Amino acid sequence: MITEDGFLGGRLRIRQPGAGYRAATDPVFLAAAVPATAGQRVLEMGCGVGVAALCLAARTGAAVTGVEVQPAYAELARGNAALNGLPLTVIEGDIAALRLTDDFDHVMANPPYYTGGTPARDPGRDKALREDLPLGRWIAIMARRLRPGGTMTLIFGAARLPDALRDWPAALGSITVLPLAARAGRAPKRLILQARKGGRGDFVMTAPAILHEGPHHAGDHDDATALARSILREGGGFPQPLSAGPCPPFATP
Amino acid sequence: MITEDGFLGGRLRIRQPGAGYRAATDPVFLAAAVPATAGQRVLEMGCGVGVAALCLAARTGAAVTGVEVQPAYAELARGNAALNGLPLTVIEGDIAALRLTDDFDHVMANPPYYTGGTPARDPGRDKALREDLPLGRWIAIMARRLRPGGTMTLIFGAARLPDALRDWPAALGSITVLPLAARAGRAPKRLILQARKGGRGDFVMTAPAILHEGPHHAGDHDDATALARSILREGGGFPQPLSAGPCPPFATP
Repeated sequence: MITEDGFLGGRLRIRQPGAGYRAATDPVFLAAAVPATAGQRVLEMGCGVGVAALCLAARTGAAVTGVEVQPAYAELARGNAALNGLPLTVIEGDIAALRLTDDFDHVMANPPYYTGGTPARDPGRDKALREDLPLGRWIAIMARRLRPGGTMTLIFGAARLPDALRDWPAALGSITVLPLAARAGRAPKRLILQARKGGRGDFVMTAPAILHEGPHHAGDHDDATALARSILREGGGFPQPLSAGPCPPFATP
Repeated sequence: MITEDGFLGGRLRIRQPGAGYRAATDPVFLAAAVPATAGQRVLEMGCGVGVAALCLAARTGAAVTGVEVQPAYAELARGNAALNGLPLTVIEGDIAALRLTDDFDHVMANPPYYTGGTPARDPGRDKALREDLPLGRWIAIMARRLRPGGTMTLIFGAARLPDALRDWPAALGSITVLPLAARAGRAPKRLILQARKGGRGDFVMTAPAILHEGPHHAGDHDDATALARSILREGGGFPQPLSAGPCPPFATP
């Protein structure tokens, strides 16, 4: 069964399998962090049904190429591009094997990141979630596809930061890590990592971006922060560059 | 010239060179993060005049051994231990060369972390601040001095997190990173990193510990958060373990 879901406050219609890997907020936050401008060329490694790619195209007018190894997802991504009238080229293939041009302005990915546990019942969901290539290999492959000065952006579970940094390619520098935390005072569960090809800046960890107001969920009212609302429902982006300083609007608990 | 300065709200008197490396808040925060208990054996690599070691001894009753390569600092550390009536054994020597027992319950360090720039005019200050051993080597040496289940704790500039994680020894796991930020919404300038020998827990980044209230310094009043006051002036510690959750009392901006 295929469902059709709204993203960015209904600005984007996304058809996706009802039972397989279903896009949630990670690809939306990923797209919000990429500093693309109109006409730039962006590559997404592992684009699934195209949520991040289409969010980015909608916000920036960039021309996005998505690589997806699962044919059913690749086909849905093509359909979603047409459904929304947005420029997304989908290439079916394995990111580790594919021959691609190496002068993209930006490369982004929301790589599989569950390394243990029971396989998901749905094989498509399992493939989308489970790591078969170490995170360091993803980063190395992404780095090769960038022009000098281009940026690489990833979103992943916070627990994998050491894996991401362990075999870091010398070609990438000026690393910024933006933690995403559900609430002020909570440990961030997701990190957005951005780096620049040829960058020489120091590693920077920014203040966490806070997604919900208050110390805990209270009642039925909507407690999304202004930042989360702007990104998830209005198609906004994070401040650019991510390392510019505090992450306004910063939620006050 | 030697000055005598108060730490922990005057609970600790520290004699240190007026012109050399002068301890500020880093060693106090380092000591506040070490989960030592009375009677445990703690090693500090590079103890300087003994601020972190004596803060930890004062808070926990642990028996601390400090290693310091600069004779003048080692002598001051011995004097400071006597001045405060606290159990600190100081060994003069180079951490890379020293033969020591390998069953400490905890090892801590505030390693030199300026890797570039002009040498400080004072050679003692320069030696205390400038990296001559890569951070990964410090960590490897620290790991060897721990008993199984013992903890290693470091404080360093946030920009050095990739260096710390790059050549991570397999013997250490359950890494927790606690960012220290001057104010809510500011990028953390310091990180406290803690790991456990034989630990198998996931990497955890906690919420930042916030040191000052409000978005910027306003007027002359004291704006230290309750957490910063507790640690810097009352000899308190961070919540233990660091990865247990939010870092109360969390400052509301």
